[in-house]
Amino acid sequence: MTIFVDMDEVIADTYMAHIDWYNRDLQQCLTLEECMGKEVWQSIPEEHVDYLRDQTNQDGFFRELAVIPDSQEVLRALHEKHDVYIASAAMQFKNSLREKADWLDEHFPFIPWQNRILCGHKHILKGDILIDDRAYNLEAFDGRGIQFTSPHNIHTSGFERVTSWKEIGEKLL
Amino acid sequence: MTIFVDMDEVIADTYMAHIDWYNRDLQQCLTLEECMGKEVWQSIPEEHVDYLRDQTNQDGFFRELAVIPDSQEVLRALHEKHDVYIASAAMQFKNSLREKADWLDEHFPFIPWQNRILCGHKHILKGDILIDDRAYNLEAFDGRGIQFTSPHNIHTSGFERVTSWKEIGEKLL
Repeated sequence: MTIFVDMDEVIADTYMAHIDWYNRDLQQCLTLEECMGKEVWQSIPEEHVDYLRDQTNQDGFFRELAVIPDSQEVLRALHEKHDVYIASAAMQFKNSLREKADWLDEHFPFIPWQNRILCGHKHILKGDILIDDRAYNLEAFDGRGIQFTSPHNIHTSGFERVTSWKEIGEKLL
Repeated sequence: MTIFVDMDEVIADTYMAHIDWYNRDLQQCLTLEECMGKEVWQSIPEEHVDYLRDQTNQDGFFRELAVIPDSQEVLRALHEKHDVYIASAAMQFKNSLREKADWLDEHFPFIPWQNRILCGHKHILKGDILIDDRAYNLEAFDGRGIQFTSPHNIHTSGFERVTSWKEIGEKLL
């Protein structure tokens, strides 16, 4: 079985990094709770949105992301049983390419370069399962789409949903 | 129709860059003719092979590659008619990721980030046509594989072959 796994907000905590950087750089006190059901940029004053959009162009943003809990253990077990690929729509942010490769080397060294994909559209992926937080990626995928819960998608319906890597392990191992 | 196009030795002249860097750095006089039917590393003394392998880790190697003749004009026309994706097995060389993105921005700005793929294995690509110089990529692809002639593959058989971008234009436009 071929399984594609998204990076941001599935194995890497991009959402919390947006909040942390925002609070640190603009001296704010935004909480995760205030953002639930929205994108981070929808949860802040309009005059701060340009700053937020530019975070992803900053050196280190993608390199320092926290790992989503239990993703390492479950992905390692999945990798031993199935063909697991990391698939990130990273081409949007050129400075993220090297940082994402380095981040995977640090946190997911058991996923070899042959099984890493930095792309744009995900409908060009041929396989059985896509685990992703974004509805537009899951819709376009020609296979079983599993939506990984992220603060921005808690009100999205229409997809098989998982809220933790433990749950993925129970479904797929 | 979805068309995947490889980078190295299809739109970017990696092969000639290996020879040029080798001649410049080790004061050699290797010619393209001496390499025909072989990889560059098979065409040089064994004591130079480590140097050659390390070229792809050098800053600038992938950034300065020459464009394969007519690839820009034909790809632009293909892009207007079909879904064209650039698909490079770039994950093997981490330092190449940014250089390849910058190179595409310079020479193929009409291919947007959504249509660029840096990957490892190419059998995960879902589409109609793959244009590639490597037999192992074409064999694994689930569609029409077109082998682009490169010095190293002139004796390979078993695939539909093109020797120039003009020929690709005649076939696909």
